[in-house]
Amino acid sequence: MRYFDDFAVGEQFRSRGVTLSEAAILDFALKYDPQRFHLDVEAARETPYGGLIASGFQTLVLAFRMFLQLGEFDHASVGSPGMDELRWLAPVRPGDTLRTFAEILEKTPSRSKPDRGSMVLGFRVVTQRDETVMTFRTTVILLRRPPAEPPSSSA
Amino acid sequence: MRYFDDFAVGEQFRSRGVTLSEAAILDFALKYDPQRFHLDVEAARETPYGGLIASGFQTLVLAFRMFLQLGEFDHASVGSPGMDELRWLAPVRPGDTLRTFAEILEKTPSRSKPDRGSMVLGFRVVTQRDETVMTFRTTVILLRRPPAEPPSSSA
Repeated sequence: MRYFDDFAVGEQFRSRGVTLSEAAILDFALKYDPQRFHLDVEAARETPYGGLIASGFQTLVLAFRMFLQLGEFDHASVGSPGMDELRWLAPVRPGDTLRTFAEILEKTPSRSKPDRGSMVLGFRVVTQRDETVMTFRTTVILLRRPPAEPPSSSA
Repeated sequence: MRYFDDFAVGEQFRSRGVTLSEAAILDFALKYDPQRFHLDVEAARETPYGGLIASGFQTLVLAFRMFLQLGEFDHASVGSPGMDELRWLAPVRPGDTLRTFAEILEKTPSRSKPDRGSMVLGFRVVTQRDETVMTFRTTVILLRRPPAEPPSSSA
């Protein structure tokens, strides 16, 4: 069980991989991002991509899911206030296998809420060709390790 | 059929609404964001949220889907290089109805590719209580209207 206090700036994480099938790309697109280069293999050929590519939102949610699956935040995470500098750098195509790398960039105890702190993580999503297809930063709020003994005077 | 040339800075868009059921929140969480406050109604009660809340990624993809459904970008969009300043401002709970507002903030013809241009859009997602739950900016690339006649000398 890791708390805010147990993580260090510079710590790095590497997820397992996930292979995106054409079916998974089409299914996600139909529900969340029905643009022709994500949803229609025929129409996608006529676009600058020359064929079907995954929605960038799909790459994003899979990256985060693969990171969560490491279990590092299972116990202490209480959510995120936001995300910055998301960049889709290269198309993801059917059959590509994605892996997520993350690193703790900053760590700040909360001033107003002594039971928690925030960390900034940098994410990088990489294919089986070692091509970086997406980067982003996100802030996460983690609970601090509860004191072994209760404070002598609780306000 | 709207092209890059047909949009103006300051133009505003308002999507239809989408109601998030508890089932839809749980289903998305299981696939993409299996944190206890998105996936487990019992455990969620013990978190600072006091109950189940939707994954911020679900709010994001639904916001974009609702915007796409307006059809404004059906013809000319060729994707996006990224997203900035995403903020999750308040929890989304089962039964909440989300609506997306977007505005064109910037518009820049491409210097290197004369057939396209980029626009920056500001998004805001609002509940039935007129509470803003998420904001973000994204850049989209749109094709320019093809000239009615081919240029007299094509380089």
